[in-house]
Amino acid sequence: MAITVVGSVAFDTIETPAGKRERCMGGAATYFSLSASYFTDVRVIAVVGEDFGKRQEAVFQARKIDTRGIEHTAGKSFFWEGSYLDNLNEAKTHITDLNVFASFNPKIPDAYRDSEFLFLANIDPVLQRRVREAMPQAKLVAGDTMNYWIKDHRAALLEVLKGLDILLINDTEARMLAGNNNLVQAARAVMALGPKALVVKHGEFGATLFHGATPKGESAGRTFRATAMPLEEVVDPTGAGDSFAGGFFGYLASQPEQSPAAFRRAMFYGSVMGSFACERFGTERMQKLTRPEIDERFNLFRELTHLA
Amino acid sequence: MAITVVGSVAFDTIETPAGKRERCMGGAATYFSLSASYFTDVRVIAVVGEDFGKRQEAVFQARKIDTRGIEHTAGKSFFWEGSYLDNLNEAKTHITDLNVFASFNPKIPDAYRDSEFLFLANIDPVLQRRVREAMPQAKLVAGDTMNYWIKDHRAALLEVLKGLDILLINDTEARMLAGNNNLVQAARAVMALGPKALVVKHGEFGATLFHGATPKGESAGRTFRATAMPLEEVVDPTGAGDSFAGGFFGYLASQPEQSPAAFRRAMFYGSVMGSFACERFGTERMQKLTRPEIDERFNLFRELTHLA
Repeated sequence: MAITVVGSVAFDTIETPAGKRERCMGGAATYFSLSASYFTDVRVIAVVGEDFGKRQEAVFQARKIDTRGIEHTAGKSFFWEGSYLDNLNEAKTHITDLNVFASFNPKIPDAYRDSEFLFLANIDPVLQRRVREAMPQAKLVAGDTMNYWIKDHRAALLEVLKGLDILLINDTEARMLAGNNNLVQAARAVMALGPKALVVKHGEFGATLFHGATPKGESAGRTFRATAMPLEEVVDPTGAGDSFAGGFFGYLASQPEQSPAAFRRAMFYGSVMGSFACERFGTERMQKLTRPEIDERFNLFRELTHLA
Repeated sequence: MAITVVGSVAFDTIETPAGKRERCMGGAATYFSLSASYFTDVRVIAVVGEDFGKRQEAVFQARKIDTRGIEHTAGKSFFWEGSYLDNLNEAKTHITDLNVFASFNPKIPDAYRDSEFLFLANIDPVLQRRVREAMPQAKLVAGDTMNYWIKDHRAALLEVLKGLDILLINDTEARMLAGNNNLVQAARAVMALGPKALVVKHGEFGATLFHGATPKGESAGRTFRATAMPLEEVVDPTGAGDSFAGGFFGYLASQPEQSPAAFRRAMFYGSVMGSFACERFGTERMQKLTRPEIDERFNLFRELTHLA
């Protein structure tokens, strides 16, 4: 089943202990769609400037990602510059130039309208809601957000949450959104705001799925934790969370049924794709994977965490 | 098979968001031995003062722990006071009164000398080494340490590490000991110092086992990660790491063979016991468990992390 994703397509300048790269391909929608493209058809809605040319377009085309929803406009694309010199788990932002993204007004190609899966990457919740409402046929809707929207645009964000099947956020965001430092209590509070399932990402320690759809008393289906893989070298953690989301949602969309068992495997595929993302700068690794490589790592994750 | 453990038996005053308790039973050897006692016979070597009376003795006796190696001497027992008001993952120490522990000289009862399993809890590495050398029959020796010994008593600690089969430490300690922030690289560096297996504890995110005994190329046996359980309420994290060690080593000692599969299950039992420890103040929960409760939680951990 096809996924439509709306979010940022950007250029990133990134410095990590492994080195520095200028103006890599970046943006949540880019990482998400590359990652999800190994599992299902992906259609992107975004806006880019004149600096987004044939070379950038080719990255999407090589993965057969539908880019008809990427609007080209006068000006420059979203640009972010950050570093992870002290702490690979948290980016230090040096520059955020919204550029053409500042006036982003998502336009949905007619060809996208039969997408049964919709991913609302981290953008203004007003836009997330607009896209969701314009795609009423979507049967499973997942989304991301960040501290900025949680703190300063809470009312708009709460409207989005009401319509979400799955919310994917990190520890800090979950605790901030719930106003509660205990993960289990925070998860319950967040799910009371709308999402039927919540994925809380823990960076190098994986992610926890709280899955409310399972009948009460069946603890197995309600909470599931996938670890992350201890990596010999983390070259660049940028986009790991979006790559996780792409693997998670891409796998779900590829399945005939979104059962609790499928959600569990999706958590593993999310972790697999997040681990690959960290192995090279920017989207380098996400561009050149193969499905056998992905499944081999899936098996490594199983060996890493399963008793036998 | 019996385990002999050497370490601190203490009184703790603890404040957490859930409340405050004065002079609970505490100390690494106390948590370790209570936890391990659900799996195998445990014998303690420690020193206590005149404040350690029948009530404290009864805690060990109720779990059939051999206390003939607890030396009673004039003065007060080791006392620690700390709080976790801002951060449940890290204690803030207010008072450390070594008292009789300052001149601790471990005496090993003859009845302990056939112990095939030896646990060197976090004490002066000079004493750890002395106990290890006095018990040459021990076929599996595990130990713990802390930042203080790593920083200021490195030479003595390195002597201990040479004789260890298994070292159990936390993330910060592993990175400090190795002088390397990458977990995989740090693990390799630490294991080059002696330990054949390394367990790195990640607090609320579980623990990773690096197991060098497995032939190269068999990735499955070499790294294993057990998660911790998301808890609705963490009442008091004191002793969770020592309870983990007790469950881990206690289970290993109860097995006919310390195979890679047994190590994996031991990691789960460690996590199980660590999760119980956090549910009440001090050793309250560790004193009153049953083996069926423990195995029920073991199964919850399996459901929490296994695909099917």
